[in-house]
Amino acid sequence: MRKILVIGIGAGDPDYLTQQAIKALNRVDVFFVPDKGTEKAALKQLRTTILQRFVARKDVDMVAIEVPQRAAAGCYQDNVDHWHAELADRYGRQFQQHLADGQIGGLLVWGDPALYDSTLRIIERLRAKGLALDYEVIPGISSVQVLAAKHRIALNQIGEPVTLTTGRKLADGFPSEAGSVVVMLDGTQAFAQLTEPDLEIFWGAYLGTPDEILIAGPLAEVKDQIATVRAEARARHGWIMDIYLLRRSAPA
Amino acid sequence: MRKILVIGIGAGDPDYLTQQAIKALNRVDVFFVPDKGTEKAALKQLRTTILQRFVARKDVDMVAIEVPQRAAAGCYQDNVDHWHAELADRYGRQFQQHLADGQIGGLLVWGDPALYDSTLRIIERLRAKGLALDYEVIPGISSVQVLAAKHRIALNQIGEPVTLTTGRKLADGFPSEAGSVVVMLDGTQAFAQLTEPDLEIFWGAYLGTPDEILIAGPLAEVKDQIATVRAEARARHGWIMDIYLLRRSAPA
Repeated sequence: MRKILVIGIGAGDPDYLTQQAIKALNRVDVFFVPDKGTEKAALKQLRTTILQRFVARKDVDMVAIEVPQRAAAGCYQDNVDHWHAELADRYGRQFQQHLADGQIGGLLVWGDPALYDSTLRIIERLRAKGLALDYEVIPGISSVQVLAAKHRIALNQIGEPVTLTTGRKLADGFPSEAGSVVVMLDGTQAFAQLTEPDLEIFWGAYLGTPDEILIAGPLAEVKDQIATVRAEARARHGWIMDIYLLRRSAPA
Repeated sequence: MRKILVIGIGAGDPDYLTQQAIKALNRVDVFFVPDKGTEKAALKQLRTTILQRFVARKDVDMVAIEVPQRAAAGCYQDNVDHWHAELADRYGRQFQQHLADGQIGGLLVWGDPALYDSTLRIIERLRAKGLALDYEVIPGISSVQVLAAKHRIALNQIGEPVTLTTGRKLADGFPSEAGSVVVMLDGTQAFAQLTEPDLEIFWGAYLGTPDEILIAGPLAEVKDQIATVRAEARARHGWIMDIYLLRRSAPA
């Protein structure tokens, strides 16, 4: 039986690595490294830094897996489904080619594998198709947590819920039942379209890295500043990863 | 200026400690240790293990802070407010008595300080009252993440939101806008009262510890089993910490 360790490496700072993740890194025979092209060069750099700093054994193999583009037009759910199928085929071929029976493969996941990441779904697809594959999941510090830590806030207001969601969902409107809302994967700055009064925003980009930017304040007052800073940073770096928390200024 | 490091130590397993948390532990001159009585003896044990294993310096002071009971009757928000005020007074007195100017105090928080924990609010209260106090927040692996990792699931369904909430809130009904719902602090097994069809539950208790228990399945089929196992474990250990994720079996 082959085994895969899905290792959360935290968001941005190598110091977010847990003891458990470091032990897991050192059990791996072959690392499988998804290659998403130039856009995510900074993520590749973090991965390299982590392997150099924390992996003691020097006989570890590295196998690249080319990640295809996901179709943008048409139905979102269908596009994701087709993309996962294609990814599962590519992962499966590489696992079979490069992992001998009893060997351990490693997949490093930015942040935490439990939040808006496809790795676990891809492995479940391979198992459903009959590939004999065991796996373990090692949690990592997510950008949600780094956002809260750097702004020195709790995610929740007292006794109130927290909703983690995407820019795509937020574009449908601010969820009425939510206390605090954390928005990930927002390429369209959905926050700028919200008309609810009394919202505060805590925004962060490149969290955990030397390029980190934090802005917080009443949404109406800082949303233009965030949009400007975001556009400038994106142009300067060639990419951006950002996240934000929205909440009503006066808890109900 | 005094400084406080609020250090997330993860949920249950000392291996959840991050590199950042270990570095922070070793900057601390005085640890302030809230004492909640016998119920949380297991948490005290984890704290002791972590300090012994990861703190290199041997001249560190430990100061206990007695934690008062929170009133159970009456208005929840008022009770929490009074309890925080009382806690802030006690913390403030100990900080002033035991931390010299320029020294660093440490507060160890189970899981992540950003989720359903009062420490940051207490520090903000002290600062609002004029105590000159700087602080940093170090995120930790929360029980939410351990639950997902041990069940080997993503918290979210594809592109869907995740709501983190409390048993108190869930007792008002399953949130209609939520994709997946993670419930913490549920002393009354609110899941057992839900009548929505097609819910799945992923439940865990004593996560990250040698006593860990995991149960998953369709809510209607496993809810009685969870209630029984939970009651037995609680009687055996004298306390319980559990958490669960609910989601519709067929994503919308």
